Amino acid sequence: MGSLRVHNAIVLTMVPGRQPIMRGELVSKDGLIEYVGPHRSGIADHYDQDIDAAGGVLLPGFVNAHTHLAMTLLRGYADDMPLQEWLTTRIWPTEARLQEDDVYWGAMLGILEMLRAGITCFADMYHYPKAATQAAIDGGIRALPSGVLLQFVEDISSVERAVEFALVVRETAPSRIVPMLGPHAPYSCSIEMLEQVAAAAAEHGLGVHIHLSETADEVRRVVDETGLSPVQYLDKLGLLDNHVTAAHCVHVDDAELETLVERRVGIAHCPTSNMKLASGFAPVPRMLSMGACLGLGTDGAASNNRLDMLQEARMAALIHKGHSGDPGVLSAEEALSVATTGAAQAVGLGGQVGSLQVGKCADFTVISLAEAHNHPLHNVYSQLVYAAQAADVVCTAVDGVVLYKDGTYPLLDAERIIARADESARRIAGGQ
Amino acid sequence: MGSLRVHNAIVLTMVPGRQPIMRGELVSKDGLIEYVGPHRSGIADHYDQDIDAAGGVLLPGFVNAHTHLAMTLLRGYADDMPLQEWLTTRIWPTEARLQEDDVYWGAMLGILEMLRAGITCFADMYHYPKAATQAAIDGGIRALPSGVLLQFVEDISSVERAVEFALVVRETAPSRIVPMLGPHAPYSCSIEMLEQVAAAAAEHGLGVHIHLSETADEVRRVVDETGLSPVQYLDKLGLLDNHVTAAHCVHVDDAELETLVERRVGIAHCPTSNMKLASGFAPVPRMLSMGACLGLGTDGAASNNRLDMLQEARMAALIHKGHSGDPGVLSAEEALSVATTGAAQAVGLGGQVGSLQVGKCADFTVISLAEAHNHPLHNVYSQLVYAAQAADVVCTAVDGVVLYKDGTYPLLDAERIIARADESARRIAGGQ
Repeated sequence: MGSLRVHNAIVLTMVPGRQPIMRGELVSKDGLIEYVGPHRSGIADHYDQDIDAAGGVLLPGFVNAHTHLAMTLLRGYADDMPLQEWLTTRIWPTEARLQEDDVYWGAMLGILEMLRAGITCFADMYHYPKAATQAAIDGGIRALPSGVLLQFVEDISSVERAVEFALVVRETAPSRIVPMLGPHAPYSCSIEMLEQVAAAAAEHGLGVHIHLSETADEVRRVVDETGLSPVQYLDKLGLLDNHVTAAHCVHVDDAELETLVERRVGIAHCPTSNMKLASGFAPVPRMLSMGACLGLGTDGAASNNRLDMLQEARMAALIHKGHSGDPGVLSAEEALSVATTGAAQAVGLGGQVGSLQVGKCADFTVISLAEAHNHPLHNVYSQLVYAAQAADVVCTAVDGVVLYKDGTYPLLDAERIIARADESARRIAGGQ
Repeated sequence: MGSLRVHNAIVLTMVPGRQPIMRGELVSKDGLIEYVGPHRSGIADHYDQDIDAAGGVLLPGFVNAHTHLAMTLLRGYADDMPLQEWLTTRIWPTEARLQEDDVYWGAMLGILEMLRAGITCFADMYHYPKAATQAAIDGGIRALPSGVLLQFVEDISSVERAVEFALVVRETAPSRIVPMLGPHAPYSCSIEMLEQVAAAAAEHGLGVHIHLSETADEVRRVVDETGLSPVQYLDKLGLLDNHVTAAHCVHVDDAELETLVERRVGIAHCPTSNMKLASGFAPVPRMLSMGACLGLGTDGAASNNRLDMLQEARMAALIHKGHSGDPGVLSAEEALSVATTGAAQAVGLGGQVGSLQVGKCADFTVISLAEAHNHPLHNVYSQLVYAAQAADVVCTAVDGVVLYKDGTYPLLDAERIIARADESARRIAGGQ
């Protein structure tokens, strides 16, 4: 990996209380941050790679705390529909035609998109997790892959196999690939399955990635069947004794929030998906005031349809103002923090990524403020969250390795990936 | 203006019921659309300009039905604040330092941004309307400029002067500049002022651009003072006998909506601004089902902070699903329609722009779907609204004249405009 410097940047470390460094630089060595701070003149160091940020903003790479990556193949395939109709007539029949190869190319397409948007890490839950894992390895990006454990689908109901997969990945893949267990949701997994997951996670120190209280309907189902709220239910089963990344948490009351805070459950808030599927408004201002471990995710491209954390930060900042009636909630700086440090903590990697600090992994992105829509510059946080767009990203690196720069992917053949993903999408949509 | 062809495009005419033309072209002559339809092979026509859209989407230019263009200068200057504090401690003191020259450069900056985002027409309400008008003339864009008529500010309380300005513009500016009268809002203009505006608009056939029922507070004020709802009040004063573009309409009940529909009042819905300032959720699904004349606007860059109609279309499609609990409301196609044909009608230019039809003005944009985030392509409308971003725009033209193409502005010196606008922004923010 060698050494790399990025200079001539406005640096946002995203360390709480730290001011933007208006003329700053970052140096990484062997994948770790060695220096971050003001520009040092007269330093005669020689770096393997020296990047001029040209006045752009250097900040931690975004962490996408919840996605189903290969669903890029279904982007735009079924929009503006009621959830059950969407699932039963469009998504599930199409997914049934998925093969491992499709998932690889769909994941690769998603990796192109995420790197282009400054995302350096993602927590994935999808079928054929081996394919998504291979894509993350090939793509150079940091990933927390898991399969989907679902009670009623025979192929994917074995906790044993999921654990085996996770252990093999942990042993054989680069350290930036951190496998998790992926029980789908409290309402779609049996009590035995959830208990098995809890035990295996504890035994092997694996994180758990699960959907939690996304819709009012599913919450009612769990309450009816168990007499407990979904959060209480998971807690009783011992699942929250492990690190858990819980996607959505739209319909949680204060008592549940208290448990989530106490157990340090990572919440992956997905504002665009919650709006698009009309799931509702998660109590985000309340989560923040209660000190929840709050991150952001894009969800899959079928319910977004972008993998773009700048968009999620903006959506979160905007919709919770509108919904609460208070324009002061979720400031631009808070939204950006939730998309970086918050999301890193939510997936259990708060010690390694999510802020620019010496000793952490050199996962970062550079966002240009050169075009008209980013002028004038009164406030860097506001500019990124409310004015900038994914296309303003000019450089993205993971472990100090540049994976996207100025329209090119040094490690990837973008044209081929797009063609192969298009082919897969045509096949599964056409049913051939 | 001569002749121009755009070929090799997916054409969305935005004429209701018309299917996308998967390999289509458009020809304009002397600023008007002469042909739009499938690719014609073997036509040996010679065009002054021939543009290969390379498979991108050709659609009508977006119409921004409500903005305060030169507020680009205040982009990011005061965010995440309560409305009254925002206005009194930040926006108004800064605006008090504005000079005519600042408005010109701020408007020019906004024009760069809008052309880059596929916007070909905007309805503006701001101080020093002469400067914004000159900017629109110089920038080649279509505009409906108006000043701001406010009761309590001496300089801008003369309806007579506003009418005079409008008549001079109508007489001297190119026909694509359509002046309007801009009374600020029912609560901030006296009854006499609104009556004068109504009479002058009727006498001279001028349109009226006004804020209407943006916040619950102002509605209460009008009801308290007049005993009428804001819509009834304006109707009683005769204002709605003219073409009116009413920005926001967040807090309108069914009776008011009926009046708005009956009087064909153009509604400029501003979803991002309504969220950012926590004004509330306009009853957009109800407006659509009642057949309202509904368009979209960005509002000013201080309350957005973008001038990006793709973002407004997406925000509208997303937040009204979330707020209504129905994922079927405001489909991608409807959202795109509201941003083009709807907005054109809302500003009173439905006969000239807003759809691609023979005889209409050749105002169009081309959006590339080449990058990873726009693959695969299952549905063109979904792709544009949910997946594409402003940066995907590769070409924007007004009256058949290309104003933006592949990073360049043939008529404008972008670097100089940005530098001058930055300078103005520094001066007014710094108070020098």
